[in-house]
Amino acid sequence: MSLVVVGSVAFDSIETPVGSIEDTLGGSAVYFSLASAFFGPVQLVGVVGEDFPEDRHQLLRDRGICTRGLEVISGGNTFRWSGKYFDDMDRRETLSVDLNVFENFQPILPESYRDATFLFLGNGPPPTQASVFDQMEGSPFTVVDTMDLWIDTARADLEELVGKVDALVLNDEEALLLSSQKNLVLAGRKIRELGPTYVIVKKGQHGAMIFHDGGETALPALPLADLVDPTGAGDSFAGGMMGSLVKSARTDLDSLKIAVAWGTVTASFCCEGFGVNGLLDVGASALQKRFDSYRKMLDLGPVEVLL
Amino acid sequence: MSLVVVGSVAFDSIETPVGSIEDTLGGSAVYFSLASAFFGPVQLVGVVGEDFPEDRHQLLRDRGICTRGLEVISGGNTFRWSGKYFDDMDRRETLSVDLNVFENFQPILPESYRDATFLFLGNGPPPTQASVFDQMEGSPFTVVDTMDLWIDTARADLEELVGKVDALVLNDEEALLLSSQKNLVLAGRKIRELGPTYVIVKKGQHGAMIFHDGGETALPALPLADLVDPTGAGDSFAGGMMGSLVKSARTDLDSLKIAVAWGTVTASFCCEGFGVNGLLDVGASALQKRFDSYRKMLDLGPVEVLL
Repeated sequence: MSLVVVGSVAFDSIETPVGSIEDTLGGSAVYFSLASAFFGPVQLVGVVGEDFPEDRHQLLRDRGICTRGLEVISGGNTFRWSGKYFDDMDRRETLSVDLNVFENFQPILPESYRDATFLFLGNGPPPTQASVFDQMEGSPFTVVDTMDLWIDTARADLEELVGKVDALVLNDEEALLLSSQKNLVLAGRKIRELGPTYVIVKKGQHGAMIFHDGGETALPALPLADLVDPTGAGDSFAGGMMGSLVKSARTDLDSLKIAVAWGTVTASFCCEGFGVNGLLDVGASALQKRFDSYRKMLDLGPVEVLL
Repeated sequence: MSLVVVGSVAFDSIETPVGSIEDTLGGSAVYFSLASAFFGPVQLVGVVGEDFPEDRHQLLRDRGICTRGLEVISGGNTFRWSGKYFDDMDRRETLSVDLNVFENFQPILPESYRDATFLFLGNGPPPTQASVFDQMEGSPFTVVDTMDLWIDTARADLEELVGKVDALVLNDEEALLLSSQKNLVLAGRKIRELGPTYVIVKKGQHGAMIFHDGGETALPALPLADLVDPTGAGDSFAGGMMGSLVKSARTDLDSLKIAVAWGTVTASFCCEGFGVNGLLDVGASALQKRFDSYRKMLDLGPVEVLL
């Protein structure tokens, strides 16, 4: 089993109601990789500029992340994003975006990545995501992420790609937008008609839903009192989920439920620190402990007929 | 074990995106009673006018609801409410309210109700709720519901009452309002400091949370595609929950989790019909079947160490 992720690598400046951080390591591929690396090795595809310091490369490698696919553009600058969260941390505004080397990123997969069995296409232009998908040999279990921008500007490309892959992850607002529905359950069902086996809808503090051929499965988030910075929570969720799937080497619904639970737990740690610090500061035993608490929280005991 | 509920009995006129219904049986005590009656008998305390027809009295009695505590005011008119739901059914506007006989309702409990072991104080003025609480002999397990109106206009009375009872149920917006917090977890914890053993926060389509001395337990709602009318969902949730507790004759956290699951299931049926029709149309076996599905949805399988 092996896992490839393609996505952004960035420097973020983030302001939340509890503090701020400047020029910190970020990007969808970074959050995803750090999260999935708790479960096993991951191969990263991305692009940075010459300003991306060696110690950041080293940090990724030290975590078991292969950076052979991380292209460095001579004379270029790394993608930079800055944003500010409002009081409830459910919403944010983007203060600035400098795409830099990410603007014309045309990912080329190293030969050694192409036989991977699991592929995550992080949020990006659907044609770029499709080009990565087309470079793979075999039929990896492929999960796609997206955002409102691509639903608005590249719907046809996105729908074509979604029809070829195994799963789509997106948040609740994006699901309503993509499906033109007002009810989230109807939205997920309609998106599944595009072709993927699973649609996974992220609802932030309200948990996640899996749409599958047997119906819908809803799982709550972990109640978090110490929310510090939600940046990267969605990619950490996807990373924990994919990492768990790869480790279990299964993609059936029961395995995906457990994987979504691991994604939920991984994302909860991400939210407890600024930038990637929440992921860097947690160890495997703390993750396992929180997973066990989560499972216990949802355990309704032995089956009994009450009525 | 025995259960008393005090609350409103009303005629509702409801408009939702999928249709409408006029002058239909409603009110918090009615929804609560119909929901809890799946689990066992319930004793209703409320008030109606002479316009409340005999067949509605009979409908309640046929369901195992004792109406000895349902006062009929000669020459009076029953409480009437009308409202309209917006597209997402998460929000509604009240079109008209005629309190009528409910305006000066001073509940007097029949002697035979006063030794009940479980008490639900449906949404109403906190002093009225307190007067019912004070009429009880013994120490029933008491759950209070409230709404933004009483938080805004009768906070001191409400807080005093909450300090005396076992549990408070309220929705997420009300929890933030009552606690002056922006994070729901911090809100629930702060409300528990008022004194109740449990705080139960209803999040509509996003499920519910239990705050207890061991922390927080979040449970999702059932994914509903056929949402018809959410009126009474909160009271049906409370009724299913209390009915389950009374039947199990326990109030520990594990029993409350199962009770919240039953409340969730009962409320889901309520939302699938106009007014009380969703509750009237479902049988015990359909409720049990959906409960079993809900339990299975949350079952993450046997404990395994993945990391």
